[in-house]
Amino acid sequence: MKNLLSTIVVLLIVCTLKAQNDDSIFIRRIADEILVNGKAYDDLRVLTKQIGARLSGSPQMVKAEQWGLKIFQSLQPDKAWLQECMVPHWVRGGKDEAIAITGKQKKSLDVIALGNSLGSGTSGVNAHVVEVKSFEELESKKDEVKGKIVFYNYAFNQKFVKTFQAYGDAVTFRGSGASQAARYGAVGAIVRSMSESTDNNPHTGSLRYDSAYKKIPALAIGLKDADWLSNELKKGNISVSLKTYGRFLPDTVGHNVIAELKGAQFPNEYITIGGHLDSWDPGEGAHDDGTGIVQTIEVLRVFKALGYQPKRTVRFVLFANEENGLRGGTKYAEEASSKGEKHIFALESDEGGFTPRGFSLTGSDEQYQKLKSWQPLLCPYGGCEIESGGGGSDIGPLNRSQQTPVAGYMPDSQRYFDLHHARNDVFEAVNKRELELGAVNMAALIYLVDKYGF
Amino acid sequence: MKNLLSTIVVLLIVCTLKAQNDDSIFIRRIADEILVNGKAYDDLRVLTKQIGARLSGSPQMVKAEQWGLKIFQSLQPDKAWLQECMVPHWVRGGKDEAIAITGKQKKSLDVIALGNSLGSGTSGVNAHVVEVKSFEELESKKDEVKGKIVFYNYAFNQKFVKTFQAYGDAVTFRGSGASQAARYGAVGAIVRSMSESTDNNPHTGSLRYDSAYKKIPALAIGLKDADWLSNELKKGNISVSLKTYGRFLPDTVGHNVIAELKGAQFPNEYITIGGHLDSWDPGEGAHDDGTGIVQTIEVLRVFKALGYQPKRTVRFVLFANEENGLRGGTKYAEEASSKGEKHIFALESDEGGFTPRGFSLTGSDEQYQKLKSWQPLLCPYGGCEIESGGGGSDIGPLNRSQQTPVAGYMPDSQRYFDLHHARNDVFEAVNKRELELGAVNMAALIYLVDKYGF
Repeated sequence: MKNLLSTIVVLLIVCTLKAQNDDSIFIRRIADEILVNGKAYDDLRVLTKQIGARLSGSPQMVKAEQWGLKIFQSLQPDKAWLQECMVPHWVRGGKDEAIAITGKQKKSLDVIALGNSLGSGTSGVNAHVVEVKSFEELESKKDEVKGKIVFYNYAFNQKFVKTFQAYGDAVTFRGSGASQAARYGAVGAIVRSMSESTDNNPHTGSLRYDSAYKKIPALAIGLKDADWLSNELKKGNISVSLKTYGRFLPDTVGHNVIAELKGAQFPNEYITIGGHLDSWDPGEGAHDDGTGIVQTIEVLRVFKALGYQPKRTVRFVLFANEENGLRGGTKYAEEASSKGEKHIFALESDEGGFTPRGFSLTGSDEQYQKLKSWQPLLCPYGGCEIESGGGGSDIGPLNRSQQTPVAGYMPDSQRYFDLHHARNDVFEAVNKRELELGAVNMAALIYLVDKYGF
Repeated sequence: MKNLLSTIVVLLIVCTLKAQNDDSIFIRRIADEILVNGKAYDDLRVLTKQIGARLSGSPQMVKAEQWGLKIFQSLQPDKAWLQECMVPHWVRGGKDEAIAITGKQKKSLDVIALGNSLGSGTSGVNAHVVEVKSFEELESKKDEVKGKIVFYNYAFNQKFVKTFQAYGDAVTFRGSGASQAARYGAVGAIVRSMSESTDNNPHTGSLRYDSAYKKIPALAIGLKDADWLSNELKKGNISVSLKTYGRFLPDTVGHNVIAELKGAQFPNEYITIGGHLDSWDPGEGAHDDGTGIVQTIEVLRVFKALGYQPKRTVRFVLFANEENGLRGGTKYAEEASSKGEKHIFALESDEGGFTPRGFSLTGSDEQYQKLKSWQPLLCPYGGCEIESGGGGSDIGPLNRSQQTPVAGYMPDSQRYFDLHHARNDVFEAVNKRELELGAVNMAALIYLVDKYGF
């Protein structure tokens, strides 16, 4: 009996090792194909240089959708289609500006209106500036704020090793600073850019107005100008004259772009991999999220190139409207639920195309352990870290509606907020091999989830 | 007895956990100090922008030594000094050029003479080109090669995930290609740049002439021009007209720049941390090895800022002449041996200032396990990978002369050969936080080696 048990244990170990070895060999083939014949970098060049920034509702959004569908079709998946959804249509409307007037000088500040903000129009806003570093400080200065421009000057906390933590810590001022200022009668808001870069580029991104208060103009300011403004305010009063032109046009038709490989064994179990096709308007939306888009396409390409026929149905999704509405992700989850689709796993790449670190997971302990058990297979390609928590905006609705476990591809974060939502988020900031190694790790994970379930 | 044993085991575990916790707290203090008050980035700006490239024997070498000594002194170590060594004095001598002449056109190629190569002079070399991809192919074409220019067109193998493997695989053509070609009567050598970049910048670096053969001119060529040349050669004969001007002046005086913190408990046990101060002449020697230099200085700065008094003697060394002679590292090891110094550990940063991956070690199995045991302390700062083998050129002589275990700081390698020895190795290619996180990991490791011995 003891001998039999020993034999069974040995057999199990041998089988596991054999499986891991087969997986290791297949993942090596994935890597070789992507590193030698990869198309992600060329695809990204087209998306960024020929199409460019592609905010929801823009002509570039339409071009990008057509481009995505065409590439998907060229790779001959079992199916490729556009999934319609209404998207918001915010336009910048003009060149944002802010001029600081001190006793002695006028200085043009490097600024950009926050996305979804409503413009001052050509008459502009001209008012004195009150600096705060927290909502508590705003509260304490509420009697000063009326008729003024509130300047939120809260810097990224550099002690956070992972920059997304610093972003999470600071982004509340971009999101709700304008309305909080308006609550006390402020006429405008200037927010220190969500960045810890060494340059002066301002970084846009969404705000959300609270409908209880006046929708005042709101701008992001470059870090050097933020420091300058803060210094000057120590010396005396400063007024700023600002002009912005943002407005909403009626909602318009956008699309998720989807390709599908039908599962041979469990066609009714769905695995989703994706990124978002829209981007903010400065720059070219290269790292945010052109890289996630071309990595998603590359995973499909490598599966086809290697003749990989998945057991489960794998969906490749270029989501619409992540930046200022999440309508694409919401629509995708709604349709999944209404059709009774069982989504067992979703993966998003939306933290840039930098060198791989690993994956983050929102799922059960058991699922986390399963992901952990694949670590040795991912480590050779840099995807060694497995973190708990995380996922991606566009796949969040799937997690909320049917508890689908969701994972985020996690590249190194140090450079992301140097260019996030800024004019320097361009093709040239992407390294070909870093981008490709991301695709390698993503393809490897999808392969493992498909093979073993999740 | 069994109870006593259990108690001892529990006590040991408690002590270990307590020590790891203390270490974790101190390393967190190191990180906070460097990420918030770090000077490495500003130091690098001065070294690259005010001094610039600093090849051995150049006026910039002298300036860099003075700068290094002054910074060290300003940090008030127990001792700071210059250690003299004779260094080779190779000069480029002019603007390298190569013009390809096909039947139809003349095309100027983007080239740079290899370091240590002797120039053709103004009369130049004009000859037909023979392409080879290996020394075996050269051997098979030995009858064709006489009077020709040999074009070594061996590309980086993209399947290697770590780019240093691809470099190690290809660099033999740069090192000994010229002499191997001259052996069969070739009059010049053109070597595909040691890179897998997407641009056309040529990458210089050392060659070694074999004294048995004629010292023919040798150039590196940008990757796009290498591909162009290879394509044109498929269509027919091409001649190239090249001019280079490299020559050696007499050896001159250079210096290792050294600072020392005296060990409080074991002053006769030495720990060395360093990088190399010299650089090739195109670009600014930012990643190679300005970053290693300013990280070394930063480790001293953080120890002083935190009032850390080492148990063992720690030496901070800015080595001379890594690129084309290794005279600095050789001198350092010679003097260490002649003075009977016991060097227990040495660490070098010479793989760029990119985001941390970990450390490589050349040492015993026991030492490797010791380094491995510190992994949990380094992981939070990105230095999770511990590899066997590796170290650094400048600390190699210490390892060879007294078997000192040597470690290399290992940043992510994907971008290094995009700029190594090329004109784009400039300050702007360095990310402040990636640079700083490297210094954090290096300081943490030196702290651990100092505290526990090695």
